[in-house]
Amino acid sequence: MQDAQPLDRLFLALADPGRRGMVEQLSRGPASVKELARPAAMRLPSALKHLKVLEDGGVVASRKVGRTRTYVLRPEALAPMREWMREREAALDAAFDRLALAMAEMPEEEGNQR
Amino acid sequence: MQDAQPLDRLFLALADPGRRGMVEQLSRGPASVKELARPAAMRLPSALKHLKVLEDGGVVASRKVGRTRTYVLRPEALAPMREWMREREAALDAAFDRLALAMAEMPEEEGNQR
Repeated sequence: MQDAQPLDRLFLALADPGRRGMVEQLSRGPASVKELARPAAMRLPSALKHLKVLEDGGVVASRKVGRTRTYVLRPEALAPMREWMREREAALDAAFDRLALAMAEMPEEEGNQR
Repeated sequence: MQDAQPLDRLFLALADPGRRGMVEQLSRGPASVKELARPAAMRLPSALKHLKVLEDGGVVASRKVGRTRTYVLRPEALAPMREWMREREAALDAAFDRLALAMAEMPEEEGNQR
């Protein structure tokens, strides 16, 4: 549970189609705010707000060069999510046979009585 | 983008440590509301609210047997997330060399001029 907050922020950051669109774009290479706002026909202030959520969630990093701020996807951005998912899937795999057995032993909602 | 809403709900469902705790518990096997509320010292109405978010997000399914409602983790629950992540990581891998090159070509914030 010590990683609760970073995971909260990461999942929250990805729970928006506009922000996921930005991540998709950035996974193909760095981009400026303008370039990130354009595909979704977003206004710059709105794009900046979304980018701040992504930056707070550790998904993107930015760097100002001259007058242009360039955003990049952090290569390790999705690692906590991947790790969390892997743990769940390992537990699921281990529990699957038990689960199937438990489900099979549950009485049907109707019928199935003699 | 056609999957935007399911992914929204899935990520939102997982953006809470209490709900992730429930998923962790359910990945080890089915459980009742009471059993899911106990480890987090949650009240039943609060647990039910969280379980509704998880059910709406397609993460869990429930089944009422007699007076007890039992929750299970849907085996394919995390599949859309895994798929989305895989696409991003494939794009990242493909872009990585280009990205590294682009970063290397960026002028330093200060210094580096002759």
